[in-house]
Amino acid sequence: MPQGQVTTVPQDGLTTRQRRRQAVLAVHTGHGKGKSTAAFGMALRAWSAGWPIGVFQFVKSEKWRVGEEAALKALGQTGGATVAWHKMGEGWSWIQRAGTERDHAAEAAEGWAQIKRDLAAETHRFYVLDEFTYPMKWGWVDVADVVATLADRPGTQHVVITGRDAHPDLLAAADLVTEMTKVKHPMDAGRKGQQGIEW
Amino acid sequence: MPQGQVTTVPQDGLTTRQRRRQAVLAVHTGHGKGKSTAAFGMALRAWSAGWPIGVFQFVKSEKWRVGEEAALKALGQTGGATVAWHKMGEGWSWIQRAGTERDHAAEAAEGWAQIKRDLAAETHRFYVLDEFTYPMKWGWVDVADVVATLADRPGTQHVVITGRDAHPDLLAAADLVTEMTKVKHPMDAGRKGQQGIEW
Repeated sequence: MPQGQVTTVPQDGLTTRQRRRQAVLAVHTGHGKGKSTAAFGMALRAWSAGWPIGVFQFVKSEKWRVGEEAALKALGQTGGATVAWHKMGEGWSWIQRAGTERDHAAEAAEGWAQIKRDLAAETHRFYVLDEFTYPMKWGWVDVADVVATLADRPGTQHVVITGRDAHPDLLAAADLVTEMTKVKHPMDAGRKGQQGIEW
Repeated sequence: MPQGQVTTVPQDGLTTRQRRRQAVLAVHTGHGKGKSTAAFGMALRAWSAGWPIGVFQFVKSEKWRVGEEAALKALGQTGGATVAWHKMGEGWSWIQRAGTERDHAAEAAEGWAQIKRDLAAETHRFYVLDEFTYPMKWGWVDVADVVATLADRPGTQHVVITGRDAHPDLLAAADLVTEMTKVKHPMDAGRKGQQGIEW
C-alpha cells in the first residue's frame, strides 16, 4: 500500500487537490486471478464515495461474476449510489433483438458504442470494463479509438479495464497498471472451482 | 480466468462434489495494488453465497479500507449474510482497554487469538485477514501456529490472507497464491491518492 509519498512533483500547473481529483484509468492484466475481483473491490470504494457505477462485462459465460453482480446490485438498491450492470453474454440490455443469432464481434462493438455514449453523457463516475482487453485484442474494438476516447473523456470518470494481454497502447495510456501473476492455483492440484470462491 | 479444466485428478478418495466444497486458503501477496481489494471482491462472492464474513484488519491507519468497510457493512445489513469487521487500528472491538497505550505486537497476538477462537467455533465461513503477513513477518504471531491452525480448521471455512512478503511456509500451505505486481502507478507521476480510488 503506497504511503502517499510521491516521488516526483509534476509540472502540470495543478494543485494537489486538483491532482487528487483527476480521473484514473486503471488496467488489471496478467494471467493470475484477481483482475476482475480487484476491479469489483474498487467498485466498493467507489460506491462508498457515492459514485454511480457502470459495469460492462465482455464475457460470454453467464456463470462468471454472478456473486459480484448480486452483491453490487444489492448495494445499488440500498438508496446509495446506483449500480448499472450490462452483460454481453445475455445480449446487452439496451438492445432489442429480432432473433437469437449472435455475432460476438458486433456485440462487442455495440458494447463499446454504449460506453462511448455513457462517457460522453457522464452517466457513471466509475466504470468496470470487464474482460475488455479481449475484444481489443481480437480487433472487434479499435484500440486507437479506445485510447483516444478515454483520453478525451469529460469530467472525472474513473475507468478500470480488466483482462489478459492488454494492448501496449492501452498500458501506455493507463495511470495505474497492475499485473496479477498466478503463483499457485487449486486446479493445479486437481481441484475444481466452487461457488462462493470462483463465482 | 480458469475454464474449469483440471490438469491432474488427485488420488484423495474424494468426489468432484466433495472437492468443490473444500475450504480454500488463499494468499494475495506482492508489491502491487489489489491484494486487499481482490480479497474484498472475493467477499462479494462469499456474501452472495450466503456465507457469514469476518474481516480482521491488521493495519494501523484508520483511513485504509474505509470504502470497502462501509460497503460491506451496508451489505451485511441488508438481511443477507452477516459481515463482522474488526480493526486493530482502533483497538480490537472485543477488548476493553484501561488506558490508551498501545503495544502493536500484543494487539496483533490478540487479533490472532480471536481468529483462532472464531475458527474453532466456525463463527464465519469467509475470513479476510488483511495485512496479516506483517505480524507474521515481524514475529508478533507464530508462523507455525498459523499454518497448523489453518490446516486443522474445522468445517468449510475459507480464509484469504493479504500482504507483502508472505512467509514461505504460508505460501506452501496455501491452495491459491496470487502475486500482484506494480507495473505503473499514478504516484510515479507525482499524483497522490484520492478518495474513491485509494480508500
